[in-house]
Formats: sequence, C-alpha cells, structure tokens
Amino acid sequence: MTHLDAPSIIRTKRDGAVLSDEAIDWVIDGYTHGRVADAQMSALLMAIFLRGMTTSEIARWTAAMVNSGHRFDFTDLRRDGRPLALVDKHSTGGVGDKITIPLVPVVLACGGAVPQAAGRGLGHTGGTLDKLEAIAGFTAELSKDLIRQQLCDVGAAIFAAGDLAPADRKIYALRDVTGTTESLPLIASSIMSKKLAEGARSLVLDVKVGRGAFLKTEAESRELARTMVDLGNAYGVPTRALLTDMDRPLGRAVGNAVEVIESLEVLAGGGPDDVVALTLALAGEMCAAAGIDGVDPADTLRDGSAMDRFRALVAAQGGDLSRPLLTGAYTETVIAPRGGVMGDIDAMAVAMAVWRLGAGRAKPADPVQSGAGVYIHRRSGEPVIAGEPLFTLSTETAERLPAALAELDGGWTVDDVQPPSRALVIGRIT
Amino acid sequence: MTHLDAPSIIRTKRDGAVLSDEAIDWVIDGYTHGRVADAQMSALLMAIFLRGMTTSEIARWTAAMVNSGHRFDFTDLRRDGRPLALVDKHSTGGVGDKITIPLVPVVLACGGAVPQAAGRGLGHTGGTLDKLEAIAGFTAELSKDLIRQQLCDVGAAIFAAGDLAPADRKIYALRDVTGTTESLPLIASSIMSKKLAEGARSLVLDVKVGRGAFLKTEAESRELARTMVDLGNAYGVPTRALLTDMDRPLGRAVGNAVEVIESLEVLAGGGPDDVVALTLALAGEMCAAAGIDGVDPADTLRDGSAMDRFRALVAAQGGDLSRPLLTGAYTETVIAPRGGVMGDIDAMAVAMAVWRLGAGRAKPADPVQSGAGVYIHRRSGEPVIAGEPLFTLSTETAERLPAALAELDGGWTVDDVQPPSRALVIGRIT
Repeated sequence: MTHLDAPSIIRTKRDGAVLSDEAIDWVIDGYTHGRVADAQMSALLMAIFLRGMTTSEIARWTAAMVNSGHRFDFTDLRRDGRPLALVDKHSTGGVGDKITIPLVPVVLACGGAVPQAAGRGLGHTGGTLDKLEAIAGFTAELSKDLIRQQLCDVGAAIFAAGDLAPADRKIYALRDVTGTTESLPLIASSIMSKKLAEGARSLVLDVKVGRGAFLKTEAESRELARTMVDLGNAYGVPTRALLTDMDRPLGRAVGNAVEVIESLEVLAGGGPDDVVALTLALAGEMCAAAGIDGVDPADTLRDGSAMDRFRALVAAQGGDLSRPLLTGAYTETVIAPRGGVMGDIDAMAVAMAVWRLGAGRAKPADPVQSGAGVYIHRRSGEPVIAGEPLFTLSTETAERLPAALAELDGGWTVDDVQPPSRALVIGRIT
Repeated sequence: MTHLDAPSIIRTKRDGAVLSDEAIDWVIDGYTHGRVADAQMSALLMAIFLRGMTTSEIARWTAAMVNSGHRFDFTDLRRDGRPLALVDKHSTGGVGDKITIPLVPVVLACGGAVPQAAGRGLGHTGGTLDKLEAIAGFTAELSKDLIRQQLCDVGAAIFAAGDLAPADRKIYALRDVTGTTESLPLIASSIMSKKLAEGARSLVLDVKVGRGAFLKTEAESRELARTMVDLGNAYGVPTRALLTDMDRPLGRAVGNAVEVIESLEVLAGGGPDDVVALTLALAGEMCAAAGIDGVDPADTLRDGSAMDRFRALVAAQGGDLSRPLLTGAYTETVIAPRGGVMGDIDAMAVAMAVWRLGAGRAKPADPVQSGAGVYIHRRSGEPVIAGEPLFTLSTETAERLPAALAELDGGWTVDDVQPPSRALVIGRIT
C-alpha cells in the first residue's frame, strides 16, 4: 500500500480523480482522531462539493463514517419472545416537519420497534430533539444500556446520536461553517452513516422537495433519495424512500412546543390533514419494510393506541405531559389585509421567521427557545376574512419579533382564486 | 453595505461568482486576525483553486494581503546624496536556482539598491535564506531600522519577510497542507503581496518553465508572468518578467552550502555558463528597470566589484566567509554505467533527491541541513567516460542516502547523441 497523506488525498479529489478505499478509510479515521486537521478536511469537502463522488466512493465514505464509532446491534433483543421488528424513518428536514412525533407511536402500536438516533436543528430546519425537549423533563441523552432496555420495555427510543458516527458529527459541524453543506454525496453519506449505525434493520426515508427543503429541485431530491436507498441496500439495510412536498409548511404549527401540541392533536385523532396523511403514508411504508401486515395505521389514531404508546415513550424518557407546553409570552399577530383565499405560503419564509424567533440555531452550541414558533391560522386554499388573524408569531424574547415579521413579509398572499393544489407524496423509490 | 460572513463568501466563490472588494477585504482581514478560521479559509482557497479569480479579484486580494501588515517605504533614503535606485528580483523557484546570491551584488556594483524580502524553501524548491544561512553567522532576521541602515551602508538587505503581508504568510502555510498550492491566482497574489510590501520601486520576475518549475507548461508560466506583471504595474511598481527554462537544474550545484560555493565561483569570474548567463540577463533587466544605464553587469564579475559587494553584504548580516562552507559528511557517488554523452537530467528528480538528503522541508517549521546537496559532475551534453562520477550526493544524515539515490534513479541517461539544446531565456514580458 502506498503512503497516504492528507494533501495528496485532497489533490486527488481536487483534480477530479476517484479516491481509493484506502484513502477514504485513512482520511476519515485521521479526521476522527485529529491527525487530519479541520483545514484539510474542509479543503477536501470543497473539492468533493465541486468534483463529486462516484457511487462506490460515497458507499465507502459512508461505511468509514459508520466505522468511526459505535454501531448498535439490537438483533438479540426480544419482546414477547420474538425479535423486534426494528425499523426507522428519517426526514431530510422540512418546515413544520413534526412527523416523527406522531409516527413513532403509530408504528409501535402497529407492532414495530423504532430505534431512532435523532438530531437537533441547524439552519432553517427544526430538529426532532429540540421539539421533544419542549416537553418538561424529556431527555434524549440515553446510555446504551437504557436504549436497549427501553426498546424492550416500550419498543422505541429517541436518542441523541452521541457516539454514533463521530466522524460525521465533526464533518457536519465543519460543513456548516465552510459553505459545503448542500452537496449530494455529503448529505447522503451524513444521513446514512447515522442511520446505518443506529441499529434499525430497515429504513424509510422522507426526502423533501421544494422551497422549504434542503435541495430545491425534484431532480436533486430524487437523486439524493436514489443515492441513499442504494447506500442502505448495499449496506444490508433494506431502504425505501418517499419524495414529499416541502413547498408549503406541513400543518399549521412551525416551531418547538407548538409542533408538539399539533402532534398531540394528531395522536388524539385530529390535526391537520396533511400531517395525518404523511404520518400514515410513512407508517405504511415502515410497516411494509418491517414485514408487518394486517394492520391499518389509521386505526391506531382512532382507537388511542398510538397516543398510549406516545405517553409511555415520553414517560420512559423522563417527560411529563401533564405539565403545560408553553409557547412564548411575546406574540405578534399578522392580520388579513383583505378578504379572499389564502394563496401560496412560502415554507422558507415561515422557516426563517421561526428561526428569527429563536427556535433554531446559527451555531451548533446555541440554545433554542421551546416557546418560539409560528401558528398558521389560514392555510393555502382556506377562505380569508379581512381583519382576521393569519399568523401568530411567538417568542420568549420580544426584540426578536420585528426581524421575524420581516422574514414572513412577502412569503404569503391573499388572492381571489384558489392556489394550485399540490400532491403531498410526489414519488416513491425502492 | 450588506452583512459579510465567511460561509456566504465561500459559497459565492464556490458557485463561481465574483467576490466583491468588500468581501475580499473582510475575509483577508478576518483571517489575519483570527475571526475567519483556518477551515473556512482553506475551503475558500479550494473554491478559488477550482473556480478561479478575475483580474480585478486578484488585484484586490493582493492589495488586501499587502495591507494586512507593514509596507516598507525607502523613498526617503539617500546614498551619496541621491535617492536609491530600489529594484528587486523574484524567482518563482527552480532547482539549483541560487541566482539571487550572485545577482544582488552584481546589481549593487552597477549602482542599484536591492531591498529583498526572501523566503525559506518549502517543497521541492530551495529557499535563498536556507542557502545563505549555510554561511556561518549569517542572519536574515533584521529589524526595520537595520534594514534601512543597511540599504544606506551597503545598498542591499536580504531579510526574512517577517511582518510583510502576514495574511500571505498564514495563507501560504495553509495552502501547503490543504492541496491548494498550484493555483495561478493564489501563486501570483502570494508572490506579489510580499514584493509590493518590501519597498522596491521596480521589479523583475524570473518565471520558471519546465519539469523543475512550480507550473509545468509554458502557457501556464506565461499566464502567471502576465498576471504578476499586470499586478505590479497596476499597483504602481513597474514590473517585467523573463520566462526561463527549468527543465534541467541550473548549474552543477543543488542544495544549500553547495549552491553558495557555486555562487562564489560565479562572483570570482568563473562558474557554470548558465548561472552566469541568467545572472547577467536578470541584472540587465534590473538595471534597465531602475533606470541605470552605461554599465555592463559582466564587468562587475570580471573586475571583482560584485565579489566585494557580496562580502560587504554578508558581513553586514553577520556572515563570516572565512569559515568553511561544509557539505555533508556522508556522501554517495553515482558512477557512469557506460561512456557516451550525458543526456537529459530531470530537474525534478534532482530536486527530490536533494529534498530527501535534508536540504528542504516537509513542514514550515522543519530544520534544513546546510550540508545537504547534489553536485552534478557531468551536465547534459557533456562527454561521459564509463566509471567516472556523474553525481555526488551529500548529507549530514547517512540514512537519508538510499531514498535520495532512489529519487535520482531514472532521472538521467547516458546516450550516444547530444541531447537537444535548450534556450535559457524563453520569453520576456513587460
């Protein structure tokens, strides 16, 4: 084997050539353990951004990141004497995308088991953990033993990625400050390294398309989905993906506590139709992927079994649903300037407003506000009466309101005609 | 002015757009003062490497680097009551390129004055300071006051770039470890930022072409020369360039002490014809650029006046030429396997052998060996007798010899016919 060093590996990719398996293993291991400097990794990431990676390079890069830390194996766990139907879902990140919160209990109620390494939000998309931490006492910092125990006891654990794929954690933080985020090979390998390490036996991906998504065009999102599905299958974890619309926010609530409240509405059998529909579509895919048949996920919302599972899961992780979910004390309401029909609502404008209100981070260590959020009173296509509330903005910090209002400005219209309706599920990749 | 931040600036260049003057000033100042991280600058450098810069971006980038530190102004200095004819030369770096050592005293003897911020070697090309430091006691660490005094007293000072263009020093070190060295805009701005800060009123550039040069093709070297000449002229420092051959080593000596010895031969009126010819060609350009006429630089080698100037310069900087210049105690000689004519000698093979012997650095802080070097007994085109010495390798560390011999292997031939002769000066750009 030839001598490996970081500058040579960087130059190889810089000049458009293919990195060898040995080079990928060496540079990921070296970066994880500090032998490759941040500056070297960021130059390599920019070269990857501009030169791309082949399918086999992405697969090796992903495997090297999985191998940089602990990989869970829950195949020995039994519940009622049978192996767990371990399945998980990952979303590429949307606006108002609280789907994990109702989805996990629905799948549990159908007989699945969900080991989920979840993330905190960075940039404009919210993180599941930030939302769940709006519940008093809820913690995602679970030990390995607790995760195993909880999978046996309640069937699911939603935990901070911790020491899963530590190479990815370092690279993800670096990409954020070095303008190397929006790269298909880097996005695909980042997502899949954590998902392949968390111990699920099959995966369902929710790949977002549209203004509020990470990648804006359907072609890019489809390519990302295809890349990740191939990565999972090649790694021995059967993977499928739905392409779903993220041009407009999901549901009426965007933020932290406010999204938990909406999720509870869904679990109680109500909630916005798009949130319910996407939850059930993904639950159906997860059940199919896990080999569960003969159950209708919609039944679990109607009969309260999903709500029961959610309460058990939250309690197992220290959360207290009897205490109120508080939205911020400082609010501002946007009033309809005229009557008509609510037109297009730009998911990105809403996301930026919520971010300004304090729900998201600019840097990984920033705190987030549970109470920050936007509630959408009138969704696209709903009738509007002049003077009624369209949006309520909430925050724990009054001085954040003007910037948030400015972000929202121009992101919506009241029209005379119905806006075009959009399909929620755009495509399916297996 | 819009808000500036490093990720946005990186993304702008990453996506192929032009950086604004404000963005360039901000990022160079921020990097100099630590507000922009190494990882961010290296991502930007890779984006510049792959996307390029416009002429006006390079000019602004260069000016920002000049402005990051002290800029010398010697226009107030007088010698014999007259302003100094301040002129300097810079070489893009060659193999056996000791030309500065005889050239500076020749120009002094012709009536010029030379403020030279010189560099240490990094990678395969040697540094003038490393060579001069083979002279016992020689120091290039001169204070600003000493530099001014020495320009008045002996007409020249060869000093470590120190606090000239500190942004460039940081970026140069970063480029070396991040695979972003061989970029025309980055090379041109790096060279010119130091040269525009050092206080010369005109500049002559020696831009190398060929296997032993930084850039391999004539087209690239010509573009680099044109870019740097334009940069100097735009900055108000009249600049011209010679394109010169660097396919074969310059002279017979490549290394540190061994190159000083060869330089002394040239100053004594002897030495290899190519070293003499290039010294005189560059001296002629420097005299013309400085407005000096009526003198023949060759006279200064014949009449000993250049040697006198060299002795005075070395003495002023603490050097003692009465003490021996030592080549390394451990040597290995490559013997002619057959008779014939010395064929091609690959400058890069010689450079790598010298580097392995200890004359150069892998990292900026590495020490170098004064005694490391290769002496070429038979140059291209010279007759060879079977069994006679062709190369002598010297080092202060015996265990370095095998790797150096391996580098040289295959880098030369003995043939039956004369190798094609090559022009030393390939082009001239004003």
